Amino acid sequence: MIAASPDVVQLNAEYARAIDDDRLEEWPDFFVEECLYTITSADNHKRGLPVGLVYADSKGMLRDRVTALRQANIYERQTYRHLVGLPAILSHGASAMRAETPFLVVRVMRDGRMDLFATGRYVDTIVDDAGALRFRERVVVCDSGRIDTLLAIPL
Amino acid sequence: MIAASPDVVQLNAEYARAIDDDRLEEWPDFFVEECLYTITSADNHKRGLPVGLVYADSKGMLRDRVTALRQANIYERQTYRHLVGLPAILSHGASAMRAETPFLVVRVMRDGRMDLFATGRYVDTIVDDAGALRFRERVVVCDSGRIDTLLAIPL
Amino acid sequence: MIAASPDVVQLNAEYARAIDDDRLEEWPDFFVEECLYTITSADNHKRGLPVGLVYADSKGMLRDRVTALRQANIYERQTYRHLVGLPAILSHGASAMRAETPFLVVRVMRDGRMDLFATGRYVDTIVDDAGALRFRERVVVCDSGRIDTLLAIPL
Repeated sequence: MIAASPDVVQLNAEYARAIDDDRLEEWPDFFVEECLYTITSADNHKRGLPVGLVYADSKGMLRDRVTALRQANIYERQTYRHLVGLPAILSHGASAMRAETPFLVVRVMRDGRMDLFATGRYVDTIVDDAGALRFRERVVVCDSGRIDTLLAIPL
Repeated sequence: MIAASPDVVQLNAEYARAIDDDRLEEWPDFFVEECLYTITSADNHKRGLPVGLVYADSKGMLRDRVTALRQANIYERQTYRHLVGLPAILSHGASAMRAETPFLVVRVMRDGRMDLFATGRYVDTIVDDAGALRFRERVVVCDSGRIDTLLAIPL
Repeated sequence: MIAASPDVVQLNAEYARAIDDDRLEEWPDFFVEECLYTITSADNHKRGLPVGLVYADSKGMLRDRVTALRQANIYERQTYRHLVGLPAILSHGASAMRAETPFLVVRVMRDGRMDLFATGRYVDTIVDDAGALRFRERVVVCDSGRIDTLLAIPL
């Protein structure tokens, strides 16, 4: 049995909005210091295979990633639009919550072309960090294993 | 006037998640024993024309459908990703509720190709079945009449 | 900090449903008499450039637009399917509320072809108009600047 949680709905909406508004500098703040952020495919996730696409295990690595994106100016070439579904709360302990949230991301290129970029689910461990919900783990499980190699902006 | 209903939002999220997670064996349990599940197009639905695509009028038929899918191994060739919108509660009687919920389904093929598979609305009659909300009727009204003939997984 | 608002979620759901159900005559009623409805691109919006695509600054203009659409019968050639995300409430004064809501619109042509038509965000000023929430301003900011010139149905 899963239960809806307005706070987790809100967290997901703010996370998506920060990225889609190109406020990437705020993105690491959705995580606690000791965190895990990875992007993988459903197949690899199911088989327990190592993550190939993106792996970061500290907030510092997330910040470095944003800095690199800004320096490379890759971020200017595309924007994302996230649509997220209702989170399923899988477990809710005293200190942490496990949740899964479906998502769909459309990519919009600089010249106006749009494509369905990724669908999948966020598999999250969420903690209350001094009054704010933050991700201790966010595993981005993409339904397709064919992810664009230009993958640059956080999902 | 329509009103939001957290329970119906939740029901829709769990329904979509069961299918997208390939837990198809759980899918018939979203329905009561004497139920109706059909897939039709908006044009046919508006004109009251008979349903062509999928028709099942008992939970047993839904179970048979899942068994057939498993035996055919068709289910392995593709997965879905549902995004559902807010349900509109059209009427709310003592024993049943009428609701409409917009949806969008992306199909992900085994080789990683993704396409926008279907959009439309669920036209539902929902009942309280010993404490759990279940569908007495779920009419899947697809916006497009051009539905892929490989249609196999439940929408 | 943004906060979710069930009323604004509801308003967005009803707005989308009216359009997707082809009840266009109800569309102007989502606005107050003295209103602003425009469609623009994210680039133009960010730079403060004039709106090129659609501009209406009274409820009468919105009604005229619907009348024109009906006479041209253009509306028969396509339908939309909106999926909207969670509104971010940007400010909430005594008389008005500022909100932003992400959206995705799929277009379904008469012959059944579907395409991802537009993504973006609604930038709204919402007022309480004698007990009902209505838009004083709805600026439709499309992520892509490449909007189909057949743009006809309201977004």
